[in-house]
Amino acid sequence: MKPISYEQAGPEVRAVFDDIKATRKVKDVNDFWKHLANEPRMLSHVWASVKDIMGPGHLDPLLKELIYIAVSITNNCEYCMASHGYAARMKGASEEQLNELYAVVGLANMTNRLANAYSVPVDDAFKREEAAP
Amino acid sequence: MKPISYEQAGPEVRAVFDDIKATRKVKDVNDFWKHLANEPRMLSHVWASVKDIMGPGHLDPLLKELIYIAVSITNNCEYCMASHGYAARMKGASEEQLNELYAVVGLANMTNRLANAYSVPVDDAFKREEAAP
Amino acid sequence: MKPISYEQAGPEVRAVFDDIKATRKVKDVNDFWKHLANEPRMLSHVWASVKDIMGPGHLDPLLKELIYIAVSITNNCEYCMASHGYAARMKGASEEQLNELYAVVGLANMTNRLANAYSVPVDDAFKREEAAP
Amino acid sequence: MKPISYEQAGPEVRAVFDDIKATRKVKDVNDFWKHLANEPRMLSHVWASVKDIMGPGHLDPLLKELIYIAVSITNNCEYCMASHGYAARMKGASEEQLNELYAVVGLANMTNRLANAYSVPVDDAFKREEAAP
Amino acid sequence: MKPISYEQAGPEVRAVFDDIKATRKVKDVNDFWKHLANEPRMLSHVWASVKDIMGPGHLDPLLKELIYIAVSITNNCEYCMASHGYAARMKGASEEQLNELYAVVGLANMTNRLANAYSVPVDDAFKREEAAP
Amino acid sequence: MKPISYEQAGPEVRAVFDDIKATRKVKDVNDFWKHLANEPRMLSHVWASVKDIMGPGHLDPLLKELIYIAVSITNNCEYCMASHGYAARMKGASEEQLNELYAVVGLANMTNRLANAYSVPVDDAFKREEAAP
Repeated sequence: MKPISYEQAGPEVRAVFDDIKATRKVKDVNDFWKHLANEPRMLSHVWASVKDIMGPGHLDPLLKELIYIAVSITNNCEYCMASHGYAARMKGASEEQLNELYAVVGLANMTNRLANAYSVPVDDAFKREEAAP
Repeated sequence: MKPISYEQAGPEVRAVFDDIKATRKVKDVNDFWKHLANEPRMLSHVWASVKDIMGPGHLDPLLKELIYIAVSITNNCEYCMASHGYAARMKGASEEQLNELYAVVGLANMTNRLANAYSVPVDDAFKREEAAP
Repeated sequence: MKPISYEQAGPEVRAVFDDIKATRKVKDVNDFWKHLANEPRMLSHVWASVKDIMGPGHLDPLLKELIYIAVSITNNCEYCMASHGYAARMKGASEEQLNELYAVVGLANMTNRLANAYSVPVDDAFKREEAAP
Repeated sequence: MKPISYEQAGPEVRAVFDDIKATRKVKDVNDFWKHLANEPRMLSHVWASVKDIMGPGHLDPLLKELIYIAVSITNNCEYCMASHGYAARMKGASEEQLNELYAVVGLANMTNRLANAYSVPVDDAFKREEAAP
Repeated sequence: MKPISYEQAGPEVRAVFDDIKATRKVKDVNDFWKHLANEPRMLSHVWASVKDIMGPGHLDPLLKELIYIAVSITNNCEYCMASHGYAARMKGASEEQLNELYAVVGLANMTNRLANAYSVPVDDAFKREEAAP
Repeated sequence: MKPISYEQAGPEVRAVFDDIKATRKVKDVNDFWKHLANEPRMLSHVWASVKDIMGPGHLDPLLKELIYIAVSITNNCEYCMASHGYAARMKGASEEQLNELYAVVGLANMTNRLANAYSVPVDDAFKREEAAP
């Protein structure tokens, strides 16, 4: 499937592209959106969700980029590591923070499998409702 | 494999258990460590790594718990979701923050596959060295 | 490991290659089979299974190609996306259908993780035997 | 996180629940939506996407349920296998079709890894633009 | 789907069950095969492949059980961990060996993600043909 | 992130590099370690774990390389397949053994999903403590 540029796009796709550019203050949308424009319904839904959830909320926007990177490393999505790594740096992530992020992701992938391997049952303490503040 | 309690443990394992209890200010270690005690070398290495990386550093300890949860959801590790969900709440995560975390993890898993499906090439802008501040 | 061409292959491998070519009405087998020929036993088993299951049966052959693509996107197997994407187009898949497929795969990967994150218990209705017609 | 029933829900969540019930002609929403209601923004986005993509389009609705099951098996999401297995049967899937689906998913997961193991390069034929009708 | 017992099975399934019992010298097949019997073609193919590959060959049968466990831990397949853990013990695996296996699987899952995170390029030495003896 | 050469490295990283070179009897460390050197704490922990677990123990070192490859194929980590494939060959793995390994990994990934698809319950025999010798 080929990417669809602004010039090639119909009005439905252009409206999403315009909103991405205005929201992110960029001159052009990145390649992910141009490819997703092959399915205008999904382009619209994904952008609506990402705009809403990745913007200001209960978690810091930089933190949300780091979470995105963590998932992308785990799934080995090269494009997503590159795009969200770029976004994280644009939002102020330091090299030290990214290195520490990679360390945490590595450890989590290891202990996830160790927990599987030993079929560790969930501790009662983690289940007690009163445990949560 | 059965969990190994403090009473059943040899001196090498007890030393790790003691350090976990002192570091975390808890009366007993959780079930993950008791199972991992079946392999004392790995118990020692995993604890050394986790103690070092998950403690104070370049990223906030709560943030690192959230990253751990993000990976554990992606890998569907029930034990790890429970233990790090508990830890995140102990470190102050609000329900609103956890809900937003789940949303980000859901979106990342979706867009990871959309990027795969369209084989989106990495944008030049993401590769430029000068792009990073 | 290097691919094994028809000329280089022994009689056991040639027999499988001949059957693939006859079944698919193609002049040569694709690179997957030439690599798998390094393990003639597995070449034989995989082809026997694929020939049997992917041919006429209870599901339309095109549909089975789409299912193959869905799994390959989820696992990020570039070769498999390319080969089964090609096969799907050869069997009549339209670009609109492939785009919709990608959307479904994206959504499923998202909701899989949301179901994990909330540890949603299976509804009784889904378990009732009488639920199935 | 606890599920949120219609009675406990605020107007934003109720509006989504009402739309799910009307669209699907069911008396109550299933547990997935009640849990997702803890994050009303995501409830709204996920439902909007699912309603749009899983309904009538370029692929048969039953086929889309089968694709959903294929992804859910690959990711080992028990809830999603149960809910979409139920939906597939409601839309007419026969036991023979589901068994064949499982076979295809098993084969795809095997050949995905064999393609990885041999690092099979993508055949030129799969890349040629003229290959696609 | 319900498991199919020997008594309920047709001749095609019974023939496979008989061969499993004779090959493994067991009185009954385990639940995996009884479920797979819902798709007799796949039962036959999977058994033919497993019998051929998991038996005597270039790798020790115990080693092959350990590899099976490593994959099953990585994919979090509880059934497969249990069945191949049992088989490994029957073939002589010690608890020390299983613990060391779990450690290797944990480490591999960690370093796989660290290699992803840093996008480490493959060293020339690993690619040189003369590198292989 | 850029790799860090011995010349660029600080004393903490150099000490690890020196130990890798002495342990493995190589002139330079491979690219994985040079990248991981961006996070000296993790470099130190990962090397300590790998040195300890992958060396002499309860399982043959070659066998442990094969397990590493099995996990890396399952996760589709190209770097890790290349580096541990090289290490396995250096430790004496034959092409026949590697081909058989790939076959086992393929089968395990297939039967993992078939066990998921049929939600096969764990056989009582696999749970009985007396089952283990």
